[in-house]
Amino acid sequence: MRDNVRVVLCQPRNPLNIGAAARAISNFGCSVLRLVDPFDLAFREAVSAVGGAPVLRAAEVFGTVAEAVADCSLVVGTTAVGHRELQHPIQRLEAAGPVLRAAASSAPVAILFGSEKFGLTNDEMSHCHWLMRIPTSDQTPSMNLGQAVAVCLYEIVRESSVAMRVPVHKAVRAADSEQMTQMLLAVLDESGYTNRIVATSTERKVRRFLRRVNFAARDAPLILGILRQILWKFRAERTEPAE
Amino acid sequence: MRDNVRVVLCQPRNPLNIGAAARAISNFGCSVLRLVDPFDLAFREAVSAVGGAPVLRAAEVFGTVAEAVADCSLVVGTTAVGHRELQHPIQRLEAAGPVLRAAASSAPVAILFGSEKFGLTNDEMSHCHWLMRIPTSDQTPSMNLGQAVAVCLYEIVRESSVAMRVPVHKAVRAADSEQMTQMLLAVLDESGYTNRIVATSTERKVRRFLRRVNFAARDAPLILGILRQILWKFRAERTEPAE
Repeated sequence: MRDNVRVVLCQPRNPLNIGAAARAISNFGCSVLRLVDPFDLAFREAVSAVGGAPVLRAAEVFGTVAEAVADCSLVVGTTAVGHRELQHPIQRLEAAGPVLRAAASSAPVAILFGSEKFGLTNDEMSHCHWLMRIPTSDQTPSMNLGQAVAVCLYEIVRESSVAMRVPVHKAVRAADSEQMTQMLLAVLDESGYTNRIVATSTERKVRRFLRRVNFAARDAPLILGILRQILWKFRAERTEPAE
Repeated sequence: MRDNVRVVLCQPRNPLNIGAAARAISNFGCSVLRLVDPFDLAFREAVSAVGGAPVLRAAEVFGTVAEAVADCSLVVGTTAVGHRELQHPIQRLEAAGPVLRAAASSAPVAILFGSEKFGLTNDEMSHCHWLMRIPTSDQTPSMNLGQAVAVCLYEIVRESSVAMRVPVHKAVRAADSEQMTQMLLAVLDESGYTNRIVATSTERKVRRFLRRVNFAARDAPLILGILRQILWKFRAERTEPAE
């Protein structure tokens, strides 16, 4: 699928942005970068292409959009939807991503990005089946070119079905919980925290608190060690000879 | 929700990246940028912050991670998961996004990004509840800082329920379809395309073809105009006096 994705930059001006696009292409496991009439032919020197150097070296340069998309079955343009009246249907990136992914699973697909200053021209857009836009804010709709490429490719490769993995830590055994409870109660007692009159209620409160926290089994030695050390210190101070 | 998102850059080195982060924050309708111990205090001059200048001007600088996240109820670190053994649970960005969005709807949430060279240090990670990673390729896992910020914020603000809008163009009326059919048949006839022997079969083929294409009503004048002009040209040539 990813080999079928062609990122096409139309009249890009800044080699740094071309390098950033190459890096994003590489980050998301794609490989094809095409440039239509780039302003600076020395773009292959771009320093921002860390990790994207092979993509940048293999980048193909074309004179026209028609040549750059000739092998593609679906051609989609990107736009920040500014003031221009657009003649094309526009999809939000979230909706376009799955369609692009499905199309790229069987045939080459081109995603067109316009120049940094003006976006895609009407002529460049006329080669597109439809347009898509990244859901940016109305106040600052226009994205940096390299960032826009990264966001679009992320949407295409993202997996919609992954769920948050709740870390399955082995919970502490009840015996360890109870040992913590007893030691914490001793600390509270010896530190003077515990009011003798309400001691029983404090004990229940502490026990409930420690069960609610639900420590991981592997944390038990750390917690018990800390409590043990505090108790040791209390007792050492009591038995030290007064200076 | 978006006002509760704090993008925290830990020890960022390159003002261009800080500017790019500010621009992405602005693109996705967020506003808070925090820097922990930035390398270059002249970062506010970053030229890459087109549209993100207000975010950059308001950026807050802190000496420690603890201070930078003090007001946050959820602190999440980003990682490319390199060679290091990580002590934290790691979520894919697709899964983390909805959790961050939900958390940010009620309380401030921090997203930590490490330095360009080394990512988050173990010390910086120890302030995190969990980590998340952008699903980059194993060959080129590490993203540019500005691009990583853009992708993470996109995932947080993206709407999962938007579907592709199928453009509902008003289909051409049957009368116009039939007029196109007749005119195209005339063109085929006068151009010599039509073989008299199979003319009836050609007519059916052309009629089926034009129905299958399902032109939009608004395109009918364009198509009819082209056909009319071709016919006019054929006939004009026939009646022109030979030179």
